Amino acid sequence: MTQPKYQLIAQTLRTRIEEGTYPEGTIIPKEVDLAASFGVSRPTMRQAIQLLVNQGLLERRQRRGTLVRQSKIAQQFTHVIQSYNQEIAANGRCGRTDVLSFCQEPATEEIQQALHLDAGTTVYQLVRLRFADDEPVVLVTTYLPVAPLPGLDQVDFAHQSLYAELERRHLAITSVNRKLEVVAADNETAALLQVAPGAPTFYFHTRGQVSDGHTLEYSIAQYRGDNNYFTFNINRS
Amino acid sequence: MTQPKYQLIAQTLRTRIEEGTYPEGTIIPKEVDLAASFGVSRPTMRQAIQLLVNQGLLERRQRRGTLVRQSKIAQQFTHVIQSYNQEIAANGRCGRTDVLSFCQEPATEEIQQALHLDAGTTVYQLVRLRFADDEPVVLVTTYLPVAPLPGLDQVDFAHQSLYAELERRHLAITSVNRKLEVVAADNETAALLQVAPGAPTFYFHTRGQVSDGHTLEYSIAQYRGDNNYFTFNINRS
Repeated sequence: MTQPKYQLIAQTLRTRIEEGTYPEGTIIPKEVDLAASFGVSRPTMRQAIQLLVNQGLLERRQRRGTLVRQSKIAQQFTHVIQSYNQEIAANGRCGRTDVLSFCQEPATEEIQQALHLDAGTTVYQLVRLRFADDEPVVLVTTYLPVAPLPGLDQVDFAHQSLYAELERRHLAITSVNRKLEVVAADNETAALLQVAPGAPTFYFHTRGQVSDGHTLEYSIAQYRGDNNYFTFNINRS
Repeated sequence: MTQPKYQLIAQTLRTRIEEGTYPEGTIIPKEVDLAASFGVSRPTMRQAIQLLVNQGLLERRQRRGTLVRQSKIAQQFTHVIQSYNQEIAANGRCGRTDVLSFCQEPATEEIQQALHLDAGTTVYQLVRLRFADDEPVVLVTTYLPVAPLPGLDQVDFAHQSLYAELERRHLAITSVNRKLEVVAADNETAALLQVAPGAPTFYFHTRGQVSDGHTLEYSIAQYRGDNNYFTFNINRS
């Protein structure tokens, strides 16, 4: 049984994308021109393009043409403790962080429970928006108790890693528990992440412990659904 | 610093939910009646209820009142290989599976690649909708090559575990790779999962290998976002 012609053409297009003939984020030639260059009909060409759209490699953009999608970022967040910039660098992309706010406030009930704090304890609230090559990837809100971390708000977390700073203070995070949910982005988060309101996002709650088992960090991280994925390798126990 | 009154009331309501005074899936008393019974103003009562809505314990339903949400199902799917019914039973709920279709078809390009098959190879396509206590949880489409698994379509997978059946045939799945994305449910999937079209869902692609490393299973599982979560415990390597 031979493969249909549109599948063979789709494979050629896929190779051109993977080899960089059509780089990520660029527009591929027009359907009519591609059909002519392959010597096939336009419906066949359209079928080949549609296959790659279905596979997530191409994306139709109104009035612009057909775009080569940026590949999603493979995140290790679910099974490795490492800094954001390390994760992004492992994907061959460039990480950047904007600190949206960094303030002190009384812990809410939720934060008291997560960090095992008494009512009225003051915590830092650090809000960071993190990018890969200028594309927003994740919005992270982190809570840490103020008492054991004096002067933390003097640190420039646009350029410093929080985990490295905690390590410097001999309070390295050595284990974390994460809970993953999916939620539709609300209007404010969608605007920050540059997605449509209601777009699906990964929604992580993290509790980070120092070596004596004490919880020092409570974070809420919302990853864009369209530019991230997570992988797992599991062996039967 | 004492806790605001609405937080104390919210804690009491939380205890009543956890202890089953207000069971999951039921409507709690009206705001006006609760305010009277706690001896507080309606705005204070509303604040307490809102806190639990924000925390996901309660849900406002138009014209019905305020509902105690079903707690989400803690899924081990990302780090343990076990049958669906085992996962659901571990949550104290009852698993059920509907087989929506089970047929043979030529492998598409995507399935050929995933299962390392030649073009034109025939595969089983098994589509299962799985429930917890009659609530849809996940839609799973599984592809397996026909040749090494003769007569598999005689098995009643509404009542038998696929993994147990493979084990019986000395083709147990011993390792899996999973890729997790989030997607908005399309109309058809939304109808099956009984969520609104566009609702966020967990979207897993799984490749399952037998002990010699050969890939035997390729599955696509779409979990409802509103009734599942996944947890991870990570230690610094």
